[in-house]
Order: sequence, then C-alpha cells, then structure tokens
Amino acid sequence: MITGVLGLKGSYSEKAAKQWIAKNNNAGEQVLEYCGDIQDVFTLLESGACDIGVVPLENSIEGSVGVTLDLLLEHDVHIIGESIVTIEHCLLSRGKKEEIRVILSHPQGLGQCRQFLKEHFPAAELRSTGSTSHAAKLATEFEEMAAIASPETADVYDLNIIMPNIQDRKHNHTRFIVITRPDALENVMEHVRDNKQDILYKTSIIVYLDRDRPGALYAILGDFAKNNINLTRIESRPSKKVLGDYVFYIDLEGNISDTIIKDALYNMKSNVGMLKILGSYPKFDHYCESN
Amino acid sequence: MITGVLGLKGSYSEKAAKQWIAKNNNAGEQVLEYCGDIQDVFTLLESGACDIGVVPLENSIEGSVGVTLDLLLEHDVHIIGESIVTIEHCLLSRGKKEEIRVILSHPQGLGQCRQFLKEHFPAAELRSTGSTSHAAKLATEFEEMAAIASPETADVYDLNIIMPNIQDRKHNHTRFIVITRPDALENVMEHVRDNKQDILYKTSIIVYLDRDRPGALYAILGDFAKNNINLTRIESRPSKKVLGDYVFYIDLEGNISDTIIKDALYNMKSNVGMLKILGSYPKFDHYCESN
Repeated sequence: MITGVLGLKGSYSEKAAKQWIAKNNNAGEQVLEYCGDIQDVFTLLESGACDIGVVPLENSIEGSVGVTLDLLLEHDVHIIGESIVTIEHCLLSRGKKEEIRVILSHPQGLGQCRQFLKEHFPAAELRSTGSTSHAAKLATEFEEMAAIASPETADVYDLNIIMPNIQDRKHNHTRFIVITRPDALENVMEHVRDNKQDILYKTSIIVYLDRDRPGALYAILGDFAKNNINLTRIESRPSKKVLGDYVFYIDLEGNISDTIIKDALYNMKSNVGMLKILGSYPKFDHYCESN
Repeated sequence: MITGVLGLKGSYSEKAAKQWIAKNNNAGEQVLEYCGDIQDVFTLLESGACDIGVVPLENSIEGSVGVTLDLLLEHDVHIIGESIVTIEHCLLSRGKKEEIRVILSHPQGLGQCRQFLKEHFPAAELRSTGSTSHAAKLATEFEEMAAIASPETADVYDLNIIMPNIQDRKHNHTRFIVITRPDALENVMEHVRDNKQDILYKTSIIVYLDRDRPGALYAILGDFAKNNINLTRIESRPSKKVLGDYVFYIDLEGNISDTIIKDALYNMKSNVGMLKILGSYPKFDHYCESN
C-alpha cells in the first residue's frame, strides 16, 4: 500500500502514518510518499498515486489546522482512521544559539512555540514552511538558521538539538487523520484489520446551517442530545461567503452503520443547508497503548 | 487618546482603528502607537502606554486569529467595540514578478492567498511577519522580495503593486475588536459617544465547560434559545490542557445591561467550569454606512 504523508523523512505525519499502519494494516509492502504540503497529500490521493493519505487535523495547543478542514470540505475524501502523536518540538541548527537569526517551521510549529520565540528570539525572522521536517532540511543550509521540528529530524538532517522541548505547554499532541478517495475505499478497507467488536467508533461530519434560521445549531445539537449521541468536538470555519457565516465540523461517538446514528443524520439532512459525512473510524485512544 | 494598533503605517488595523475612532470617539487629540505583533498591543495596553488597542479577531476566508482568542483569555481586557474592514490584498514589490523568490506576510495574509500562492509562486519561500504592513516594509530591502499587504502600504513604502486583489475569494473582510483595560474603562467610555438608543449591541463571552458533562454545550445553547437570545458566533479553541478539551468563544446579540442577558449569564455561571464576560459593544453593521 502507498501512503502519502505530509513532510519529509522524520516528520510527525510519518510517525502518525507508521503508527496507524502498524495497528491497522495487513497489506504486505508499505511505501511512503512524502508531500511538500497538506494540499499535495490531497492532490496525490486524488491522482491515484497513493492509496491513503495522513494529514494533521488539530493540535492541543494551537488548535485546528485550517487548511485541512477546508480541504476536507472541498475534496471528495473519506476519513478511515485517526492517529494521535506526541509532539516534542526542538530547536535544531548547525550553528550555536547566539548565532541564530532565522527560525523556520510550519505555521503550527511557530504557533505552538509562540511564547518561547517571543522570550528567547524576539528579533529572529520567522519563515513558514510546508512542514516541520522541511524546515529542518532548510536549516542545514546556514548556521544562522534554526528549525522547530521533531528530535527525529535532527538525526535525519544531521542537526544539533540546540534546545529541546520548546513548545509553550508541556503536553502537546496532534491528531492526524487517515483519508482515502471513494474509488479506493473498498480496496483499502480490505486490508484494514476488522476489530469492530472491540472498539469505539467516531463519525465526522460537516454541516452548513441555513443562515437565516436562528437557533439552527441548537436544534441540531438537540437531535444528538435526545438520542444520547455524545459529541467529542465542534469547530466552526468560515463559509467563505460573507463574514459571520460558518460551516461546522462535528465529531460524534458512534458508527454510521449504527441505526441510531444513521437515523439522526438522516433526519438532520432535511433541516440543514448541507451535510457532508466524512466517515466513521475507530477512536484512537481506545486501542492504542502508547500516548 | 492613545490607540495601540497592530502593524505599521498603512496597516489594516490602523484603518480599523481610524474607522472606529471617527464613528465613536469625542476625545480631542488622537495618537496611534504602532505595535510589532498582536501580543505587543496587549502588553502596551496593560503597561498603560495606550488607552485602547485594536487587533484582528476573525477573517471571512481564513477564520479566527488564534493568538487574539488566546490573549483574550489570558489577559484582563474589555471589548468596547468592533470594526470591520474590507481586505484587498495586493502583491507588492520593488522588483518584477519574474524576479520574486520570497513572499512575506502575516500568517493570515498567507492563508487568505493560499491558492494564489500555490498557483503563481509554487517555489517561493514564504516568510511570516507580525503584520502585513511589516511585510511591506521588509519587502523594500530586495527586489526578489514581495509582500502581501494593503494597497495603502504600497504608497507608504514606495512599492509597486505587482498584482492587485490576490486573495482566494472576491469578498474578504476582517473583524477587528477594540479593547481596553479595566482601570481605563471608565475614562475611555467617557469619550465614547452614547448612541445607545439607536443601536444593536453584542456581548462576547468565553466559556469553559466541565469536561465530564456530556451535553453541557447543548444545555448552554438551550438557555440562550429559551430566552430568544440570538448567537452570532460560536468558536472553539483548545483549553491547552489535553487534546480534545476546548474553551468556547460565544458572541450573542444584546447588552449585558439588558435583564434577559444578565439573568441568562448569571444562571449559566453555576453550570460551567469558567465564564469570562469580555464585554458588550455596538454591533458594527448597524451603524456604519461603509463596508
């Protein structure tokens, strides 16, 4: 099976992908395709050049990855799994701490270390890269450059760990999702271990409410509450039509194959402007001993 | 009155500040203090070096400004107003389009032009700056550099508009908030025109639910729905404690001085982990003819 991941060797997405594959996949040979940015993972998947893709969705310090949420709405993909990785950002460089003038990372990496950067490198120039691992690779060019990336990338790109554990909070986790395209779904799922009996499922949906109906969000949450369906996440993103108009991303406990979930979503469909079901997949924390 | 704004001369925050001051403020001399990033505006305000601050809160394409949401929770400030500005990003440079290798902007500017950048400058190096206007100033250094910023900054920093209107959607607006600190509130409000009779008000709150109470969000929305209080926005941010734990930012129509709002918030207080009332302020679209 071919998996598209964000970033280069040593990236957090690679770790998330390997973790998910080890737990879930029975297929023989595993190949990873490294992508320059999140959009490239979706493009690679749609082109047929990979079977699944692994991209970051949300982080416990910096919140949602907006690009991923937008792409989930724009593209026809299914979520088939999630993988949670402990993030341990380090400041990596070829040079010394005093020499560092430029710091590179993915915008999420820069955001997760905002207070650190403000305190230790208030005058440094910050550069955005497509992934933290790409930042590490670029930081090999000059001694005055440093990257915010995983300790694994220090080994891969022969950089020194100038400062370890630099994120603004001690605990830092990122949730990645595993996606596939509709025409590959059946084939991919044939290779996914079926341990449905043992595990809790989660279903992810995107809802666009009718703008002119106040209380519409409340009505929707009410349908879930009445059926004792537990929501694990609700997040808004701009609809990009006008300011103040939103699309909601909701994660709920349960499988779309459960009658109670199926009925709730069926009933909801006629009361909202748009409903997109992204997929049902095993909840991470229930079956993974690490983390 | 002294106002702290994000960015340098020609910034969108400056525009938002001037727009708000022109509509609302009676005080004589007006001084703007330009700040390097959003956190600096909060620091300046708390130090007493300015009376009010103007910072971006959300954009119609790229969504919430996470830093501002986090700082509203961390700092003791009051929101006293909002100002909505039309965003018209341009690509500005001293050089020619073919020469551009580095593109600078605030992360929101880069995000709002994501598709444009992917299409026209797939190989360009992207650099994050504290504000779009700061990007424009830096772009004056080399011909191979370009900034994503307002057309006004082209005049201020003597740059050419290489490409106008480059954001990914035609309509692009940013909502700014006007903040003050508790001990300056009374003095500041003395200079704010009182046209309370004519205008609609909005109240902004931050709520942290008890983690172990499923349906808690539904219960809160229910309190508002029962009292016919209309919510204009609900946004989640990580609590930064563990992944999957959130703080909710809610905007509702009405003034905290209205009995119905006061009672609803009073009742809510005993049912949630934390409630922070950020303030009540006139709704922008009701009293501003522009936009």
